[in-house]
Amino acid sequence: MPPETTPATRVRIDTFDASKGLDRGRPGWVEALWYLAKSVFFLSALPWPQFIKHGLLRAFGARVGTGVNIKPRVNIHFPWKLELGDWSWLGEEAFILNFEPVRIGRHACVSQRVFLCGGNHDYRRPDFAFRNGPITIDDGAWIGAQAFVGPGVTVGIDAVVTAGSIVTRNLPPGMVCSGNPCVPVKPRWPDPEPPAPGQP
Amino acid sequence: MPPETTPATRVRIDTFDASKGLDRGRPGWVEALWYLAKSVFFLSALPWPQFIKHGLLRAFGARVGTGVNIKPRVNIHFPWKLELGDWSWLGEEAFILNFEPVRIGRHACVSQRVFLCGGNHDYRRPDFAFRNGPITIDDGAWIGAQAFVGPGVTVGIDAVVTAGSIVTRNLPPGMVCSGNPCVPVKPRWPDPEPPAPGQP
Amino acid sequence: MPPETTPATRVRIDTFDASKGLDRGRPGWVEALWYLAKSVFFLSALPWPQFIKHGLLRAFGARVGTGVNIKPRVNIHFPWKLELGDWSWLGEEAFILNFEPVRIGRHACVSQRVFLCGGNHDYRRPDFAFRNGPITIDDGAWIGAQAFVGPGVTVGIDAVVTAGSIVTRNLPPGMVCSGNPCVPVKPRWPDPEPPAPGQP
Repeated sequence: MPPETTPATRVRIDTFDASKGLDRGRPGWVEALWYLAKSVFFLSALPWPQFIKHGLLRAFGARVGTGVNIKPRVNIHFPWKLELGDWSWLGEEAFILNFEPVRIGRHACVSQRVFLCGGNHDYRRPDFAFRNGPITIDDGAWIGAQAFVGPGVTVGIDAVVTAGSIVTRNLPPGMVCSGNPCVPVKPRWPDPEPPAPGQP
Repeated sequence: MPPETTPATRVRIDTFDASKGLDRGRPGWVEALWYLAKSVFFLSALPWPQFIKHGLLRAFGARVGTGVNIKPRVNIHFPWKLELGDWSWLGEEAFILNFEPVRIGRHACVSQRVFLCGGNHDYRRPDFAFRNGPITIDDGAWIGAQAFVGPGVTVGIDAVVTAGSIVTRNLPPGMVCSGNPCVPVKPRWPDPEPPAPGQP
Repeated sequence: MPPETTPATRVRIDTFDASKGLDRGRPGWVEALWYLAKSVFFLSALPWPQFIKHGLLRAFGARVGTGVNIKPRVNIHFPWKLELGDWSWLGEEAFILNFEPVRIGRHACVSQRVFLCGGNHDYRRPDFAFRNGPITIDDGAWIGAQAFVGPGVTVGIDAVVTAGSIVTRNLPPGMVCSGNPCVPVKPRWPDPEPPAPGQP
């Protein structure tokens, strides 16, 4: 214990209640089963075929589109709170802490070592209560390597987040965004025209 | 070899002496044994029960309080130079390179992918000599995900370091701190009052 | 599919052609063999002897100098596109995504969790075409822990990149560099004199 004259911490993590503010979504035995599957087929360096990974994710409740590419050593917390759009990519060592739903759009790319962090705590509460949030990486967006995306964030359609950026607020569509905090810097596309009609 | 006209490097890593400026603290066989235990019980993705991890850390000289929560895939270099206060947390993939003592205070939280880096080199010396330093994460402090904390740093009581921050200097108590370099931004608590007497 | 009124993504990752803009350099079976060797001897936490790692890297086409120190859990993509100079270091969890050649100079240090990322995509092209680039960490340079170095970058002789920096442009020799984006901040050496003649 600190001496009487030292200001003491106000935090009381021993009063933290992990059952509040978090719906784990599945019974414990399902979670345990997923953890096992994850350890063998996802966290491992072995390049398991995509159809096995897709099948497992779907069996555990994820929505997985066609043409999805999941690299080795990817950490997915709750597959039943995950949606991977058609032709989306998950790079090596991507970490998806989806306490709340995470949606990766179609043609979206999440690069190596990206951390999509849907977990948070209310630091103004001594009990450190959960303050988790969903994350949306919209269609065509690209999250550059080693970037961090926090809870509650939506990265807009076709937005680009440069490598190592720290994203804590929503990002608009079609912009290249950078920095800590990550902010829009310039348009992604050379011209501002909308895509031709009929383009998916 | 570079041509004569190219300025040559002044660095001579071949003259680096790993035995200077670093007290490994235990004989080689103990270190080897710890490395083995670490590989199986800490670096692994398997969620070993906390009592096994606590027991191992204590057996190797760490001070581990009650209620400590150590997630999987945590990398601890020297347990005999580690102190984990009551109700402290170590998140997934936290990396504690404690060449010098690292103290995590009571009710302190070290989030996912945080790197507490007690190792350093004197870059002004061609022999790249060690310039390691201790790290203190004081009671109630929260180091956000993916943050880096350098050698010699003390993060004050109840300070909050936002995700992805790079901490190279001491941070005052009770402040939310952010950025690279990480600096205090605003108070953590809504009111400036000290906690009630008797609060632990 | 998004409603008609929503602007659609212009990205078409399904048209991405992985065979364009990337010369994998070796037939698939060699790559598979390397992947196996990498998983066992490099990604693993086990501290395999240096001579085994050096021998493997050389067998797969890397140029490895004398006195090179490769720590555990290092991820090297294509050894046949890697050059490690005499007395260079690769820290734990260093990730070398060398789609194009990566050269680490003599007496250069790549610290823990550094990401040398030679991979990139042209985000202005809907097909997300490769836009990879080589990386040079010149003699005596030090890339601090958790830093990111992007494609096409040369870090000059004896430059120091501080921990957590994001390097997307060339850095001059002999300077301490920092930040996101990483820029030169101050000279590394106390005096501007060249090293004594005869120094390697």
